[in-house]
Amino acid sequence: MSARILVVDDLEANRRLLEALLTADYYEVMMASRGEEAVQLAKRERPDLILLDVMMPGGIDGYEACRRLKAMPETRHIPVVILTTLDDRDNRVRGLQAGAEEFLTKPIDDVQLMARVKSLLTLKVVIDELRAREANGRRLGVITNDGRPDAVDQHRVFAGNVLVVDDNPTQIKRIQSALGVEHRVSILGDEAGAGPPDLAVVSVHAKSFDGFRVIARMRSGEATRHLPILAIVDPDDRKRAIRALELGAHDIILRPIDEEEIIARARTLMRRKRYMDALRQRLDQSLELAITDQLTGLYNRRFLFTQLEPLVQRAQCGGDAVSIMAIDIDYFKRCNDTFGHDVGDAVLREFAARLASNTRPSDYACRQGGEEFIVVMPRTTGDIACLAAERLRRSIASSEFIIPGLAQALEVTISIGVASTDGADETTESLLKRADEALYEAKRTGRNRVIGRTGRDAA
Amino acid sequence: MSARILVVDDLEANRRLLEALLTADYYEVMMASRGEEAVQLAKRERPDLILLDVMMPGGIDGYEACRRLKAMPETRHIPVVILTTLDDRDNRVRGLQAGAEEFLTKPIDDVQLMARVKSLLTLKVVIDELRAREANGRRLGVITNDGRPDAVDQHRVFAGNVLVVDDNPTQIKRIQSALGVEHRVSILGDEAGAGPPDLAVVSVHAKSFDGFRVIARMRSGEATRHLPILAIVDPDDRKRAIRALELGAHDIILRPIDEEEIIARARTLMRRKRYMDALRQRLDQSLELAITDQLTGLYNRRFLFTQLEPLVQRAQCGGDAVSIMAIDIDYFKRCNDTFGHDVGDAVLREFAARLASNTRPSDYACRQGGEEFIVVMPRTTGDIACLAAERLRRSIASSEFIIPGLAQALEVTISIGVASTDGADETTESLLKRADEALYEAKRTGRNRVIGRTGRDAA
Repeated sequence: MSARILVVDDLEANRRLLEALLTADYYEVMMASRGEEAVQLAKRERPDLILLDVMMPGGIDGYEACRRLKAMPETRHIPVVILTTLDDRDNRVRGLQAGAEEFLTKPIDDVQLMARVKSLLTLKVVIDELRAREANGRRLGVITNDGRPDAVDQHRVFAGNVLVVDDNPTQIKRIQSALGVEHRVSILGDEAGAGPPDLAVVSVHAKSFDGFRVIARMRSGEATRHLPILAIVDPDDRKRAIRALELGAHDIILRPIDEEEIIARARTLMRRKRYMDALRQRLDQSLELAITDQLTGLYNRRFLFTQLEPLVQRAQCGGDAVSIMAIDIDYFKRCNDTFGHDVGDAVLREFAARLASNTRPSDYACRQGGEEFIVVMPRTTGDIACLAAERLRRSIASSEFIIPGLAQALEVTISIGVASTDGADETTESLLKRADEALYEAKRTGRNRVIGRTGRDAA
Repeated sequence: MSARILVVDDLEANRRLLEALLTADYYEVMMASRGEEAVQLAKRERPDLILLDVMMPGGIDGYEACRRLKAMPETRHIPVVILTTLDDRDNRVRGLQAGAEEFLTKPIDDVQLMARVKSLLTLKVVIDELRAREANGRRLGVITNDGRPDAVDQHRVFAGNVLVVDDNPTQIKRIQSALGVEHRVSILGDEAGAGPPDLAVVSVHAKSFDGFRVIARMRSGEATRHLPILAIVDPDDRKRAIRALELGAHDIILRPIDEEEIIARARTLMRRKRYMDALRQRLDQSLELAITDQLTGLYNRRFLFTQLEPLVQRAQCGGDAVSIMAIDIDYFKRCNDTFGHDVGDAVLREFAARLASNTRPSDYACRQGGEEFIVVMPRTTGDIACLAAERLRRSIASSEFIIPGLAQALEVTISIGVASTDGADETTESLLKRADEALYEAKRTGRNRVIGRTGRDAA
């Protein structure tokens, strides 16, 4: 898979070297020589990956550039690989703490670099796809941040479940002591009650199992497909490191494990998982908005029809009966005109809350519009539905509505029409119509009452 | 990237051979020996890829199994590679026509098989992600097929734009004559007015340009990222074929080009693109549902607030004024009670249609709920808004509403309150409140009129 890569280095010779290497592999390369320039270029051009040198005299260094890239919503999803000649652990940890996905030491090992690049780009394809759908939702105003903390804030630490797959007791202890401070760490075979993992740490040098097989299984299994995997590899075993990345490990850590480094890597991996989970969740939630009534939080008219239709069809074909209640708040217009819209809205919300708590989990409470509501009751006959309606009517009439900011309490009553599916020629329309007729009769004969038009008496 | 692969062959020796090969590369393998069994297993286990032998004595053959897999919604997204010892073109074309993504001849070339498997799996990761979001939308009833033809119906042929990138005149002619029957074919450098391509056919043996570079550019470019690419390769150049797949070509065709084969491959590639485009589009559209009022097709309350808030904030900071109209249909309750809900709904729809045609493209017409509507008018001062409101009022009152199924025409009038942003302490709430007050006054003083509460006279 080809991609656009931004190379940032103050020395032209270094830039040319990387350019030649990447271009030979048919990547498209853009270049910057200073940190500030890199940040601007990344913001404008949105490359798929950034290779960032640490040491850049004059202006900000690579760590600061990385921090800025990871702080901007436009660029924070772009993976950053920090390159440096300084191979001490302090620098490595510092790079990871700045939010970089990876840290490689110069002189660059071509094969390892390419394996890293490929692994990071594979994930980015999925992120891009999710981001594209999300951008559309944002444009429409359906997706907002809602004041929730941004899932990729690099200064946030997410406590998660870490599953360690290893058979080396000393190493296990080391991982536990390092990651145990922030996370819940459990060992494979001893993870009772640990909950689904947010990160797997897998040794590919274990004697009692095949670490590659574990990684492959995790990557292809339904439940663990999105699980980040950190593979533990011997420092002189380049081949295994590359194999682990190819099989779907998201990151590599070398033995002996440095505690601060594994903490930093675990943070980065979990942050990215949270970011992707949040993207998925925001999309799923915004789809739910389409069936939710904004004022009351009940289901809306759209949902009512999509749910009711198949239930009626099934009832027609000899399936269970479906009943519906059509509910109207009595004299609501008068309340609206006397106290204003705000009070009217508060009444609707309070009624919706009581309605929701008075229906069974299997029922669907929908706001049809204005002060009209429909409750869909699957697998419910007319007499049971009438009893439920009567219970609801009483619970509304029996205790006054207290509206914040309004001195007087309001007496609210409702009228309900009940209808049940009846016979083979029933349609969603005919069922709704009978409920409406029953509701109209309840209104006409004095309000605050339940009228049933269930099967027989409607004929 | 690891994955679960279903191997289908009637001979155990063949199954074992493929199993060993795939397991060595850490793929998870499941096996079936008959076509019917394969279809059932695929439906139940949803593998990531299917390797399907053609010849299976007793029961259905590989072509028929492929057709059935591609006909079921549960399995049609799973890529199928057909394997056979018969290397004649009739069989090849027959396999592709059955809907298979690829056709490989036994004895299987390991390296080529693995390159194919990887290329098909890369795409499937994205498809899975989109399908997961879509499944959620379907569960909620937000996404339905709406009677539209399914985008992956394998018997449908999609006419599309094909862009040929080649410098061999004879070969170009051959491609044009083959694909020109179903598609619009244009040649790179001569594609004026051709529209964005749905498929690129790229030669990697061209003398005047580097075909790999073209593929890489297309794959990394914003506009061509999702474009299917069919690479033309010499039959004895295995290395180039694998390189093309690695760079992101979705399929390979060998020279000399067989006309029926390229037609079948183009169909498969375009069908998959349409499928992915349809997934993306359905998600995007279902997000739009969240801001649409179902009855009238106008924007809903949710959209009103997300759009109005930033406009008011900008006006506060010295930006352009925003005006809004609050509209109420006069005596709507009476109409509803007299003629029933169906007529009431028809009146709302007819009013919404007139409202939409009476507002400027830059205005947002929203249904607030019931018979109340709000029009948001960006960059509009109070006097202009009052003129527009008066025009709207007159256009509603001047011609009766004809409701299908109702003998009499209805005289409908509306009352409108207009408010404009005024000063630095304006909020969305205060603006809406002033419009509501103006509307209330319009109602109180006789209805069918416009009252403005714009800036000064509100103070």
